[in-house]
Amino acid sequence: MDKITKVEIITRPNKFEELKDALNKIGVMGMTVTNVMGCGVQKGQTGNYRGVAYTPELLPKIKVETVICEVPVELVVETAKKVLYTGKIGDGKIFIYEIANVVRIRNGDEGKVALNNQP
Amino acid sequence: MDKITKVEIITRPNKFEELKDALNKIGVMGMTVTNVMGCGVQKGQTGNYRGVAYTPELLPKIKVETVICEVPVELVVETAKKVLYTGKIGDGKIFIYEIANVVRIRNGDEGKVALNNQP
Amino acid sequence: MDKITKVEIITRPNKFEELKDALNKIGVMGMTVTNVMGCGVQKGQTGNYRGVAYTPELLPKIKVETVICEVPVELVVETAKKVLYTGKIGDGKIFIYEIANVVRIRNGDEGKVALNNQP
Ligand SMILES: Nc1ncnc2c1ncn2[C@@H]1O[C@H](COP(=O)(O)OP(=O)(O)OP(=O)(O)O)[C@@H](O)[C@H]1O
Ligand SMILES: Nc1ncnc2c1ncn2[C@@H]1O[C@H](COP(=O)(O)OP(=O)(O)OP(=O)(O)O)[C@@H](O)[C@H]1O
Ligand SMILES: Nc1ncnc2c1ncn2[C@@H]1O[C@H](COP(=O)(O)OP(=O)(O)OP(=O)(O)O)[C@@H](O)[C@H]1O
Ligand SMILES: [Mg+2]
Ligand SMILES: [Mg+2]
Ligand SMILES: [Mg+2]
Repeated sequence: MDKITKVEIITRPNKFEELKDALNKIGVMGMTVTNVMGCGVQKGQTGNYRGVAYTPELLPKIKVETVICEVPVELVVETAKKVLYTGKIGDGKIFIYEIANVVRIRNGDEGKVALNNQP
Repeated sequence: MDKITKVEIITRPNKFEELKDALNKIGVMGMTVTNVMGCGVQKGQTGNYRGVAYTPELLPKIKVETVICEVPVELVVETAKKVLYTGKIGDGKIFIYEIANVVRIRNGDEGKVALNNQP
Repeated sequence: MDKITKVEIITRPNKFEELKDALNKIGVMGMTVTNVMGCGVQKGQTGNYRGVAYTPELLPKIKVETVICEVPVELVVETAKKVLYTGKIGDGKIFIYEIANVVRIRNGDEGKVALNNQP
């Protein structure tokens, strides 16, 4: 079976439309979006505000998950990086997972073909 | 260690109760449900509405995750397919992952037994 | 490449602050939090309330995901168990996954270093 991969992108909510359009252009149509809250390493700031120590705040983020097979993982990652890069803290993170299988319920397709753009 | 698997089902929100009951009947009690937004391949429609091209809209979906060990993956998948199939676009997708381990916090159970129905 | 692991903790929402502080103290700063609904095995109760059978109710839970490399998985699990344990039903569950790779968008870091606390 061909390798099936999930690319999970966690980034600023206001970047979603641009990210979706860029992914659509490289042939990535299927995706799942979740509103999440997150904190990254924020350069390890534990913070100290007017003498009060604080731990990093949770910020609203979106998680965009896309499971792919034919489109190369590297192309998805490079596309996301191009759209999401500002060079500022909080640009986001990408996590990559292996997936064991995928099924399209409408027609019973499994594996690679379940990710295709088929009737 | 026995193989532990996550079955992730993304489908129409109004199908949840029926899906949960069907899973409960085959012995799958533990599950986690998230409200998500999604688009699938939608037969590759990029769309064109009154001359304006559009990309697939995000629709509200639910993500149902269940981590299993004793109940066979195939039975969970077949059960979900039976409940969720309409033959129309958007019936949903099932993603299958391997899980490295599971812990029940209340009693420290790990692995297969942490998924059992035990005191 | 060093092994990258996701620890996913599903527990009571009101435990979040305490859990985050405990994780921060062992050097785990990055995390993603999702509001979910869940049911566990609940000792297999199918339930019967005034003669009406019911299936386990969904309860509001939080899902805390943290992807780690240098901090040992066992330490994260022990820390979560210490904070979340009450001995009562519903203390929560921990799922452990292997991750294939991680990318920090701001500077292109990949793998282990993308999880570090770096400028
Ligand atoms: N180790 C991690 N585990 C789980 N989620 C993480 C982790 N690191 C980051 N995230 C998620 O990704 C979001 C974006 O992270 P962020 O871009 O701040 O990463 P970072 O490593 O702190 O990089 P930067 O220094 O550029 O801010 C976080 O809000 C959080 O939801
Ligand atoms: N490749 C994918 N990656 C991540 N999520 C996906 C993917 N494909 C589908 N999904 C999720 O599953 C939901 C349901 O997908 P859907 O049933 O429309 O799949 P499909 O492949 O388009 O099949 P159909 O042609 O029957 O509509 C989507 O809204 C999205 O949340
Ligand atoms: N097998 C499972 N698959 C997916 N999610 C699960 C599973 N079991 C539990 N969960 C999630 O974890 C949450 C907390 O589970 P819970 O603590 O009730 O586990 P449990 O095994 O029933 O243990 P206890 O007997 O201590 O209640 C659930 O509400 C659900 O969101
Ligand atoms: Mg950050
Ligand atoms: Mg579709
Ligand atoms: Mg329970």
